[in-house]
Amino acid sequence: MNTEAVIYAVPAAGVIALLYAFIKASWVSKQSSGTTEMAEIANHIAEGATAFLKREYQILIIFVISVAVLLAFANSGRTDSSWLVALSFFMGAICSGSAGYIGMRVATQANVRTTHAARTGLSTALNVAFSGGLVMGLSVVGLGVIGLSVLFVIYSQLFTEIGTVINVISGFSLGASSIALFARVGGGIYTKAADVGADLAGKVYEGIPEDDPRNPATIADNVGDNVGDVAGMGADLFESYVGSIIGTMVLGAAFVPIFAQMDSSLSTAAVLLPLILAAVGIIVAILGSFFVSVKEGGNPQAGLNTGEFGASGVMAILSYFVITAFLPESWTVGDFTYTSTNVYFAVLLGLAAGVLIGIITEYYCSTHNKPVIGIAKQSITGAATNIIAGLGIGMFSTGLPILVLSIAIVGAHHFAGLYGIAISALGMLSVTGIQLAVDAYGPISDNAGGIAEMSGMPPEVRERTDKLDAVGNTTAAIGKGFAIGSAALTALALFAAYMQQADVKTIDISDPVIMAGLLIGAMLPFVFSAMAMGAVGRAAGDMIKEVGRQFNEITGLREGTAKAEYAKCVDISTKAALREMLLPGLMGVLVPVIVGFISKNMLGGLLAGVTTSGVLMAIFQSNAGGAWDNAKKRIEGKIEFDGVTYAKGSEAHKAAVVGDTVGDPFKDTSGPSLNILMKLIAVVALVIAPLL
Amino acid sequence: MNTEAVIYAVPAAGVIALLYAFIKASWVSKQSSGTTEMAEIANHIAEGATAFLKREYQILIIFVISVAVLLAFANSGRTDSSWLVALSFFMGAICSGSAGYIGMRVATQANVRTTHAARTGLSTALNVAFSGGLVMGLSVVGLGVIGLSVLFVIYSQLFTEIGTVINVISGFSLGASSIALFARVGGGIYTKAADVGADLAGKVYEGIPEDDPRNPATIADNVGDNVGDVAGMGADLFESYVGSIIGTMVLGAAFVPIFAQMDSSLSTAAVLLPLILAAVGIIVAILGSFFVSVKEGGNPQAGLNTGEFGASGVMAILSYFVITAFLPESWTVGDFTYTSTNVYFAVLLGLAAGVLIGIITEYYCSTHNKPVIGIAKQSITGAATNIIAGLGIGMFSTGLPILVLSIAIVGAHHFAGLYGIAISALGMLSVTGIQLAVDAYGPISDNAGGIAEMSGMPPEVRERTDKLDAVGNTTAAIGKGFAIGSAALTALALFAAYMQQADVKTIDISDPVIMAGLLIGAMLPFVFSAMAMGAVGRAAGDMIKEVGRQFNEITGLREGTAKAEYAKCVDISTKAALREMLLPGLMGVLVPVIVGFISKNMLGGLLAGVTTSGVLMAIFQSNAGGAWDNAKKRIEGKIEFDGVTYAKGSEAHKAAVVGDTVGDPFKDTSGPSLNILMKLIAVVALVIAPLL
Repeated sequence: MNTEAVIYAVPAAGVIALLYAFIKASWVSKQSSGTTEMAEIANHIAEGATAFLKREYQILIIFVISVAVLLAFANSGRTDSSWLVALSFFMGAICSGSAGYIGMRVATQANVRTTHAARTGLSTALNVAFSGGLVMGLSVVGLGVIGLSVLFVIYSQLFTEIGTVINVISGFSLGASSIALFARVGGGIYTKAADVGADLAGKVYEGIPEDDPRNPATIADNVGDNVGDVAGMGADLFESYVGSIIGTMVLGAAFVPIFAQMDSSLSTAAVLLPLILAAVGIIVAILGSFFVSVKEGGNPQAGLNTGEFGASGVMAILSYFVITAFLPESWTVGDFTYTSTNVYFAVLLGLAAGVLIGIITEYYCSTHNKPVIGIAKQSITGAATNIIAGLGIGMFSTGLPILVLSIAIVGAHHFAGLYGIAISALGMLSVTGIQLAVDAYGPISDNAGGIAEMSGMPPEVRERTDKLDAVGNTTAAIGKGFAIGSAALTALALFAAYMQQADVKTIDISDPVIMAGLLIGAMLPFVFSAMAMGAVGRAAGDMIKEVGRQFNEITGLREGTAKAEYAKCVDISTKAALREMLLPGLMGVLVPVIVGFISKNMLGGLLAGVTTSGVLMAIFQSNAGGAWDNAKKRIEGKIEFDGVTYAKGSEAHKAAVVGDTVGDPFKDTSGPSLNILMKLIAVVALVIAPLL
Repeated sequence: MNTEAVIYAVPAAGVIALLYAFIKASWVSKQSSGTTEMAEIANHIAEGATAFLKREYQILIIFVISVAVLLAFANSGRTDSSWLVALSFFMGAICSGSAGYIGMRVATQANVRTTHAARTGLSTALNVAFSGGLVMGLSVVGLGVIGLSVLFVIYSQLFTEIGTVINVISGFSLGASSIALFARVGGGIYTKAADVGADLAGKVYEGIPEDDPRNPATIADNVGDNVGDVAGMGADLFESYVGSIIGTMVLGAAFVPIFAQMDSSLSTAAVLLPLILAAVGIIVAILGSFFVSVKEGGNPQAGLNTGEFGASGVMAILSYFVITAFLPESWTVGDFTYTSTNVYFAVLLGLAAGVLIGIITEYYCSTHNKPVIGIAKQSITGAATNIIAGLGIGMFSTGLPILVLSIAIVGAHHFAGLYGIAISALGMLSVTGIQLAVDAYGPISDNAGGIAEMSGMPPEVRERTDKLDAVGNTTAAIGKGFAIGSAALTALALFAAYMQQADVKTIDISDPVIMAGLLIGAMLPFVFSAMAMGAVGRAAGDMIKEVGRQFNEITGLREGTAKAEYAKCVDISTKAALREMLLPGLMGVLVPVIVGFISKNMLGGLLAGVTTSGVLMAIFQSNAGGAWDNAKKRIEGKIEFDGVTYAKGSEAHKAAVVGDTVGDPFKDTSGPSLNILMKLIAVVALVIAPLL
């Protein structure tokens, strides 16, 4: 197969993704947004979200331009035109930012339209919510492959050395990481400051539930779902997606001279393979989306599963044909013989590991299983035992995913060396288009429920949106497992790529400098999590004060005769998120640079440490948070222990609410931020590798 | 200097330690135990503690004999008489068990005698409590050096190869670790099941405070202080102490041929140096203990500090003369030149790192500093924000200790290679005798306060014991920091020793098998912590039920006219601790064996992973727990925010109690157990190294 020609098919797949996203977005915006009141509430949310993203991007553009200039300057003396790494960086940032913007914009249209659709039935409501999510998913993969493949084509004309092409292109990943970092951390702080603030304000000024229109923080809470769970998650997966592609390209570059000897037309096959797989994955994701539907009275979960797992299944089969058609049947480096079939097995392992980690996550967080029921039971004796139980479940739940990940790593390496590890990450991420659609569907449904509540819709509407939302919680748990697993594999792929680029042959932990790097690296996720949680705590405190002020100063607010000043609360979340994201963000960027210039071996130890402890802390926090959340929900749906029934309003429920509130920043701020942290540090290392 | 002769001085120092401990123990037991009521309460506590230890040891003896037989069998075919590793193992277990037993026995006599002394003044009370602690401290170091030095002398007659001597002697450390594991985990579960159970039972059956004699769990709670904080902490430090000595001996063995060429009389100088330093440390600790005193109305902290830091200071000076007298001035291995002065600097670094980590720990846990005040402030908005703040502080507090540790590792290695790292651990532990005395003083004072409360002493008695106890909390925090720091360095020393014994040259984390080992190793502390916390949760639940049963069934208990059945609660804690310690214990022993037989390189990765994540999780949990505890105490001592005063009984206080309860298993069960886990896994690896 002529690899040179195939590269042009890749941006074409990206364009198809964007076109289809455009069609879906138009369809969503054509749906009715219901009553004037509904439209007004939705407007508040959309305005808040857009305002936040605008202000966030205003700060980020300064950061992006500064780093771009630094990168250009630092690389200017190295190779001719290698300053172009700055251009890649800039493009990566722009693509990631645009994907987040598009996705969030459509999500804030889809929410109210889902509510309106739910007034007549479940089927259209699911369709609207999922379509909204799909726009996010397809924007991410579309912009990802277009950006990468176009840069690759351009750089291939400019540089003769494939190594230089790939080194320069790796800036794209750094751009994506930078945006992801701030989007995840900022979005995470925003959403949880609002959520925790709204919850606690409700508790402090009793009788004001979360989505009650009298609660001034309620709009901010709904805005948070969009900037955190939609835009933040999108940027996270954009980074993983791009990172795993680039990691594989770097490692594939080692095969170029060997392939060239075999057949000059396929010299870059191993480098291009990740892009091709990504392009195929886009088409599969679009096809999979056709299967997402639900009959009236049916279970939306089944529809989403058909789409997602169906796409994974098809991808598992198609990959075989793509890989065997594209790569030589076998080739040898040193005393290791690679075969295209074995590369396929590595991809398959990644895909399987992703699905398995998702299922394990679901087990620990589902309302039907022992862990969550155990937490619910421990709530009877109060908040303390609820917290101890949740922390215990979170820590325990790291066991199986780590075993799965370890087997995937060892297996993928057994089949196809470091290239195998990198491409297995890509295998896990190949159907990101639909995976992310399902993820983003969750907060859209959540918002839809909030809007139904605030606009006083009849109970059957809220019941329908609750049904959608309940599924969203499960998909969110699975999605988080996927995001963590792929982040770990991507970080490892980038780690291997770093070693190749920095010409580090071994990273021997019996060397104390490397051991120190390992310790410091492992410490970063703890400190980073602490910063994120501290930020949420402070911002939530401000929010509670503001809610109190409004209840004291606005006469008639408590009685529902006067309007709350929603915008003030939106403003508090916005400012807090922007202020608080900077320090942890800078830490993520600067630590690897400083350590790298001390010793490139120490940086290797740091990468191993941050990945290892990052993935553990991410699983721990994410699963503890998910389990607490559902333990509360489980009690709300009534549960019996030893002949006593516990329900909403019981002491056990109050204890469970404490757990849920603690879990909020765990699962939506600090936990997911660690995905970014480990990828970011690895990609910073990769980009600065030639300078060390 | 003739090293052969000096070895006989080592057991002599050990004998001095035991003699002095015996004198102190006799003095304590001669003190009056006060009123009949006091004596009766103290009897309950002592009986409960002895009963627990007896039953624990009954189980452990089976375990110890089984492992000894296995060890003898596995090593029988290797070298002539290398089955003796089983004897070392047995001796290590016996010495550790005896030290724990002696220490606890005296502690349970000292508690009530401290209460009685506090009836007349502070000075004698401090003296009694500290003397009780000193018996524990001196028993640990005395039995440690006697056991090791006697075995060394015997084995030196049997084996000509120093390598074999040391390999066989390393079983001693494994024996110590096995006992430590079960003592820490079992003791930790016991104490917190009782503590959490007593606290929550008080909450559930309102109006029954912790040390109220009507609370049936109150004796179990006081027993727990002895079996957990005295016997458990003693076994922990016994293990670190012995482990760091053996780690240094293993690495020192590499110098034997070089030293022999220089001067045959000092061939084993580097091997014996750790024992000599330990012996000197014993004498210094005894001298330091003379300076522990307090004037009436003075601050006991000052007296304890003089003793402890004074001893550290003297040791820092004496070490210089010992090391330069004992080691050759300089010697060269490969292209690395060692000097005795540089070895001294490594010791000094360890000592300094220990003190620094202690000070940092104190900063994060002290009632006077920002972290604890911050948690107190977050308690105003409820339990959830209190928990979030505490978790945040715990995670954040890992930063500085890890930096200190990293600098110590790199620095010690810079000065004296791997030998330097090992001996720096010993530097940190050289004054364990007094360090542990100060640690054990804490729970004795705590018990004394409990006895004062239960026996209805006048308020000034409780005030005096509270004063002693408050200091105990600070020393406990510092002691925990020390224990973690020394555990980490010891684990690294054992890790280096393992590599030498298993003939593993490098542990390259870019090898996926090693990376998998690293991930799995890093996961163990999470799963282990979860198991420990789950055990506490379950046992506390049983305790709460039993307390409820007694209040329902025993008429007059609530009114104080009938006696509670304390023994039932003691029995619940005992059974739960013994039942629940087995699974995590076996995991700690079996995982390294299984992984080691899969691949000795993977085991290397596992060791690095468990040490790295173990030290982080230990610091996180220990400091979060300490900070929560003191935030509660801070509110109890009244605190003002924004013009509002919060005190005992306020909503903020209730929230702080939740944090304190969550922190209990964190700081006293799962956190400290990780110290053992990392050392145990490393020492298992070291012992099985010749078989791999």
